[in-house]
Amino acid sequence: MNPRPMLKLSHFLNSGNKLFQRRLRGENAGNCYNLMSSAGFSTARQSYGAEGRTSSRIFADYSIFKGKAALSAAPVLPTFSKMDSGHTKVDRRGVIMLTFRPAIGERKYDSEKKQLFALSVTEVGSFISLGPGDSCEFYHDPSIQSRDAGQVRKSLSVKPHADGYFISLSVTNNISKITERFTVPVTTAEFAVMRSAFSFALPHIMGWAHSTNPPTDSVGRDFPKVHPQLAAASEWDR
Amino acid sequence: MNPRPMLKLSHFLNSGNKLFQRRLRGENAGNCYNLMSSAGFSTARQSYGAEGRTSSRIFADYSIFKGKAALSAAPVLPTFSKMDSGHTKVDRRGVIMLTFRPAIGERKYDSEKKQLFALSVTEVGSFISLGPGDSCEFYHDPSIQSRDAGQVRKSLSVKPHADGYFISLSVTNNISKITERFTVPVTTAEFAVMRSAFSFALPHIMGWAHSTNPPTDSVGRDFPKVHPQLAAASEWDR
Amino acid sequence: MNPRPMLKLSHFLNSGNKLFQRRLRGENAGNCYNLMSSAGFSTARQSYGAEGRTSSRIFADYSIFKGKAALSAAPVLPTFSKMDSGHTKVDRRGVIMLTFRPAIGERKYDSEKKQLFALSVTEVGSFISLGPGDSCEFYHDPSIQSRDAGQVRKSLSVKPHADGYFISLSVTNNISKITERFTVPVTTAEFAVMRSAFSFALPHIMGWAHSTNPPTDSVGRDFPKVHPQLAAASEWDR
Amino acid sequence: MNPRPMLKLSHFLNSGNKLFQRRLRGENAGNCYNLMSSAGFSTARQSYGAEGRTSSRIFADYSIFKGKAALSAAPVLPTFSKMDSGHTKVDRRGVIMLTFRPAIGERKYDSEKKQLFALSVTEVGSFISLGPGDSCEFYHDPSIQSRDAGQVRKSLSVKPHADGYFISLSVTNNISKITERFTVPVTTAEFAVMRSAFSFALPHIMGWAHSTNPPTDSVGRDFPKVHPQLAAASEWDR
Repeated sequence: MNPRPMLKLSHFLNSGNKLFQRRLRGENAGNCYNLMSSAGFSTARQSYGAEGRTSSRIFADYSIFKGKAALSAAPVLPTFSKMDSGHTKVDRRGVIMLTFRPAIGERKYDSEKKQLFALSVTEVGSFISLGPGDSCEFYHDPSIQSRDAGQVRKSLSVKPHADGYFISLSVTNNISKITERFTVPVTTAEFAVMRSAFSFALPHIMGWAHSTNPPTDSVGRDFPKVHPQLAAASEWDR
Repeated sequence: MNPRPMLKLSHFLNSGNKLFQRRLRGENAGNCYNLMSSAGFSTARQSYGAEGRTSSRIFADYSIFKGKAALSAAPVLPTFSKMDSGHTKVDRRGVIMLTFRPAIGERKYDSEKKQLFALSVTEVGSFISLGPGDSCEFYHDPSIQSRDAGQVRKSLSVKPHADGYFISLSVTNNISKITERFTVPVTTAEFAVMRSAFSFALPHIMGWAHSTNPPTDSVGRDFPKVHPQLAAASEWDR
Repeated sequence: MNPRPMLKLSHFLNSGNKLFQRRLRGENAGNCYNLMSSAGFSTARQSYGAEGRTSSRIFADYSIFKGKAALSAAPVLPTFSKMDSGHTKVDRRGVIMLTFRPAIGERKYDSEKKQLFALSVTEVGSFISLGPGDSCEFYHDPSIQSRDAGQVRKSLSVKPHADGYFISLSVTNNISKITERFTVPVTTAEFAVMRSAFSFALPHIMGWAHSTNPPTDSVGRDFPKVHPQLAAASEWDR
Repeated sequence: MNPRPMLKLSHFLNSGNKLFQRRLRGENAGNCYNLMSSAGFSTARQSYGAEGRTSSRIFADYSIFKGKAALSAAPVLPTFSKMDSGHTKVDRRGVIMLTFRPAIGERKYDSEKKQLFALSVTEVGSFISLGPGDSCEFYHDPSIQSRDAGQVRKSLSVKPHADGYFISLSVTNNISKITERFTVPVTTAEFAVMRSAFSFALPHIMGWAHSTNPPTDSVGRDFPKVHPQLAAASEWDR
């Protein structure tokens, strides 16, 4: 058992600490997204895909269809914002989005009743480093930064069985007193696909795949330049 | 032993369940391809490579030549289709195509008598997660969705030996009462190449390599855009 | 324990051995950068990113915020220079730059007091191959090539704890008699992210990701060419 | 010990078996290159980098400098040829080229006396799958396909020591009765870099990185096409 308790972060939100708010957005993607969708898209013009274009126009879910529920996984890339220096930085880290759909008949699944769980970068790290027999559990709270904290909660657990893992999502609403629960048995082979695909996706959702591959919009600019990071690249400067 | 029994899916085919049909195409590529080749290519205009171009124009088989047969492996990329939203989704997952050719003389191999086996995404997951001493077996039936189910069957097995694995394909035709069998001994080094290459190929045949790398046809479109997935990216929305 | 003692290299510096100097720059990046920043950027026009453009315009730090300090990691790509042959070679290898910031209040971190440590290619190799319970330590000296060698020293240590590793940086200044010390406890999940991201970044900071992917500035040049490396590609030539 | 005896292939060379000759070129790169350099470059116009351009214009050796010799490693990409169908196939697989240089003074290395060893795809598979305590050995003969077979031979061995591996090359010339021998002790960290970099390079030298990423010369061709591989993609066709 390697449980990862939900961070109680709500009281930090008025601290005005930019670094820490960035962490909130990065590490607890769910909260952040919720914030953003409440805030509407009025600032969305400042936020765009790397290289100034929409970054996820191709959908390629990996789906596992089982008796009681279906589980789909897909990477969601980070978003980027332009700094005053003209350079680009990660605005919001990407996630691996898990979607659960309940079965509503023989191999029919109800998209209307789907529930989502967005694995953060560090949760993906936990997932891909699971050894045989290991388990892990993650907790998300959409209202963590408000007085409604704790009213609705999601927990995702990954627990071993004879040939693979059970991946379960439970969504508890303390107001409506309703708990929804999905459990999908994942075979060793299916888990190997997830582990391999999540490992591949990790540097992409972190933005490292973008930062190590220069933007293609500079194709053809073939003249030497002084590195803007040259000074910053020295560990002896501050 | 980790046998993976052939799924008996034929009775689901008239269910009209789109999700499930997609699974059929994704998970049992062989069946799907067969369906498609029966159906002809009349709808092929709707199906094309990511970024609107032919996606596999470079052939790079990894081939192993042994005394009784040769085994070649090559990735086949997924195909994509355009959605009404203008976005692109995986239409049919890719596979790792294995080709067996019988020896017909000293190190001569007969391409006329070749037999193919298309490893699905999940079968590749099973293959690359084989530990020392592990084995696995996969079953394909081209007629699984018709009354001819079971007449022709293919099974691929991977079984350990002292220095590597035996990879065997058997094709059984219950009508002609003919069974063809190929066995290729694969060394530990050759298996390491296959495992490494299949692992590399996995996110490509799943379409994740495409979905994490924005289409290059947008090179030069350098203006901010609202993310169409922004709402969908929140795990708190439905 | 797998300590890696600081190499005593200063007496080689006047040897005029180009290969060795390149090694100094590659293997002890900190020293090299220091040399370069002392030397100013007068030669910087000869040094530019692969494909003749600035190579790190997207910033995507992976940051871990803990009680006493924050640790950020980001890849810094190699720089390249054009040879007389018209080909390009790595001029200076990249690094993984680690940045430590002390906490100055509840989850506030002081960027003014940050300290950097640039993991070289081989140090990254050591980092990603740490097994459970392993530890390692690296030493850097900015003045290693001068009479001030040993006056200021940095050491980075990675030591196991119950759920992950302690990553510590100490900076000792023998002149001012000041030692600064940062320790960041990194969970198993966070370490898995670092290992995975550093592994991904390794071929990029080595320049192999560039050398295996032809420069995109040649897009559209679609005519056969004799390989300039064809002769060199034979192990039987000298 | 996992010795890999030199294959005695010379008597197959007049068989006219194209498949097997391709194997010779692919699997025993040294021999092949030798053949090609004897044959001159008269056919070189048919052989070019993927996407019709020179494929290795960026040099990024990974070099290890030790007391008696230096060892450098660099990927050499495959070459490609155009088929009558208009598609492209791998003409000659790539290699990881190892270069040994003897020390001729304190940390000076003699490039005039360098010796090369080209690790084939399968030899790279053997190298990257070495477990702790494992060793391997490879044999190359430049004249394997002629009556001079056995006159000059190279063998590369990788043997474990307390902190890493000894990588040794010996070149034996039975005519001049001269044997040259290089041994480079490689630390665990340096070996981790090699393993990681070789694993990264493997799908590139196999050509799989090219076959899974469509040629960029088709950028902008944004119209649907029928897949030429569609039929071939069915395992039920021949």
